[in-house]
Amino acid sequence: MFTFQLQHTDPKSAARAGRIETAHGEIQTPIFMPVGTLGTVKGVHQRELESDIRAQIILGNTYHLYLRPGLEILENAGGLHGFNGWKRPMLTDSGGYQVYSLSAQRKIDEEGVTFRSHIDGSSHTFTPERAIDIQRIIGADIIMAFDECPPYPCDYEYAKNSMELTHRWLDRCVKRMAETGGKYGYEQTLFPIVQGSTYPDLRRKSAETIAAAGQPGNAIGGLSVGEPAEAMYETTDQVCHILPKDKPRYLMGVGTPENILECIALGVDMFDCVLPTRNARHGMLYTSEGIINIKNAKWKDDFSPVDASNPCYASQQYSKAYLRHLMHTKELLGPQIASLHNLSFYLWLVGEARQHIIDGDFASWKEEMVKRVQRRL
Amino acid sequence: MFTFQLQHTDPKSAARAGRIETAHGEIQTPIFMPVGTLGTVKGVHQRELESDIRAQIILGNTYHLYLRPGLEILENAGGLHGFNGWKRPMLTDSGGYQVYSLSAQRKIDEEGVTFRSHIDGSSHTFTPERAIDIQRIIGADIIMAFDECPPYPCDYEYAKNSMELTHRWLDRCVKRMAETGGKYGYEQTLFPIVQGSTYPDLRRKSAETIAAAGQPGNAIGGLSVGEPAEAMYETTDQVCHILPKDKPRYLMGVGTPENILECIALGVDMFDCVLPTRNARHGMLYTSEGIINIKNAKWKDDFSPVDASNPCYASQQYSKAYLRHLMHTKELLGPQIASLHNLSFYLWLVGEARQHIIDGDFASWKEEMVKRVQRRL
Ligand SMILES: [Zn+2]
Ligand SMILES: [Zn+2]
Repeated sequence: MFTFQLQHTDPKSAARAGRIETAHGEIQTPIFMPVGTLGTVKGVHQRELESDIRAQIILGNTYHLYLRPGLEILENAGGLHGFNGWKRPMLTDSGGYQVYSLSAQRKIDEEGVTFRSHIDGSSHTFTPERAIDIQRIIGADIIMAFDECPPYPCDYEYAKNSMELTHRWLDRCVKRMAETGGKYGYEQTLFPIVQGSTYPDLRRKSAETIAAAGQPGNAIGGLSVGEPAEAMYETTDQVCHILPKDKPRYLMGVGTPENILECIALGVDMFDCVLPTRNARHGMLYTSEGIINIKNAKWKDDFSPVDASNPCYASQQYSKAYLRHLMHTKELLGPQIASLHNLSFYLWLVGEARQHIIDGDFASWKEEMVKRVQRRL
Repeated sequence: MFTFQLQHTDPKSAARAGRIETAHGEIQTPIFMPVGTLGTVKGVHQRELESDIRAQIILGNTYHLYLRPGLEILENAGGLHGFNGWKRPMLTDSGGYQVYSLSAQRKIDEEGVTFRSHIDGSSHTFTPERAIDIQRIIGADIIMAFDECPPYPCDYEYAKNSMELTHRWLDRCVKRMAETGGKYGYEQTLFPIVQGSTYPDLRRKSAETIAAAGQPGNAIGGLSVGEPAEAMYETTDQVCHILPKDKPRYLMGVGTPENILECIALGVDMFDCVLPTRNARHGMLYTSEGIINIKNAKWKDDFSPVDASNPCYASQQYSKAYLRHLMHTKELLGPQIASLHNLSFYLWLVGEARQHIIDGDFASWKEEMVKRVQRRL
């Protein structure tokens, strides 16, 4: 059922426009995927995701969902789609990243990772097989291989051993996928993950190994973890040259609007990041003219729309002065408006990128936009 | 411009169905008015108020708006309508109630009230004239006379002196209204407020005084401040018999669904209360079958809609188990769903009451509903 059709390639960059088909519908790439950590994209209703933000696929985090609401409730609900009412495609990570970043007393060995919950300190073990089993219960359309995401910076020996462990774990994930099936009557697709920190020889080895696994899509992990943007771009560029052209490429956890534009130019098709929602909650707005810190006093008397150039409801209905007042008084509606806007902007941005790829003028548009989206207004 | 048309009176109770016309449109009574303290009904977008909740009029609190965003910003925005984008009728209180309940070091004398802001401790004075001037700047369609709301219990002498002060302040409010005009090209209407604590002779005296003031609508204040429900009903009943039939009656700060139904039966036309939104944020849901504490473990596996009998988006889109998960994990969407539902339920309830008044079977419907809405599910 999972298919990827490469529709256009930009003549002056590696940017691509494509179409993914899943059991829950189509995804037009390049695409940004809003993050719904606990089965909810923070501050937005499901119909806002669909009609205002025009999200085509959202993420869930396996680590968080496994702890709360837990697998029994998710399975009884018919998976995460049944639980949260989102009808379109979903993707889950493998849980590994959050284990490394959130949980206490984690212990990694060949078998997997043992860790303590950041909620109640209870002890749990994730293995490659368990990560697949859990993602079978959550039921996302695209699920991720269980990997180790090394920190940055990371010494060469650690990065090499970690990458090799990730490759051995991938074999176990692929085997478990083959032994099991979707629980809810539709197919799930596994994406393996390229690791190797910022070491070119490790990244080449990993990208070749991941490409050879022959899965329907591939991911690039271990970036946007503190390395300079240049290192992120160089690694992404290198890996995109190795990963097959006829399969979608997902760059995990990236990034700012300019990061996304630059990496689209390098051949990435899928992105996710908490920035648009997390920064919205702190009053940082992304617009096509630049970045607004809505808490600044300069906006207190500005009755122009939140973002006059963005068609979203939140941009047009509310003024900057009103949104500043809501953030200033810590009213719930402030983060709601800002989250709705930032996600709308991110989806608008990748939609524009796609259109410019199709029209053949992506490279020049991208150069201009990369400057504009970084300005401080 | 402000008119009230009494359309139907229930044969077996004092319940009435009517229609208020304001410069910003029509209000069908009996009506519940969602509270938008700081110019926002907490957790709901303006279009949700309009299309889902079907609010016909919302409140703003003068005390809060005066402090934040302040009068200069409100006036530059063209009043609160211009500031928050709500196009329909609005009502503001006079600021007095919050001065008494929130601010520190308040000092009441004949002239007015001096108090310190609960935000930054700055000193301010509200007088009857100032309360009118501020409400002229905020620009609500219906504005309230400046009164003193005595605490409960309150000794007779205090209640009597306070009531007489409220009556003298009313004269000054009426005079200030006559000397000034709406700032934004439309008329504003003053409602005076009946006080007198729970003393029948004071309430009678106050209701006669307020009725004699001849304003287009009248309010009952000083209830729902801790007195037993029976005392609230007795006082409301007594006052409704004195206030003119051909003008709307607004019972301030009331209340639970059963309070509202009982007071509709006594002849009240307008209500406001923070209960549906405040309790929503704590996971208490009002439904036509009774009250749900969604945090209870009993709902964790209940995948039925939040309220199967309520047509609102929030009730139908989400399950009880999902809402419980959101409240449990302190996700923003939890209070959003619960607030949208509770307000939709309150507006549904007064709409049903109105229809039963028109149909002539309000009294029997009310008896049944009063029992149902109080049940704990
Ligand atoms: Zn927007
Ligand atoms: Zn509802």
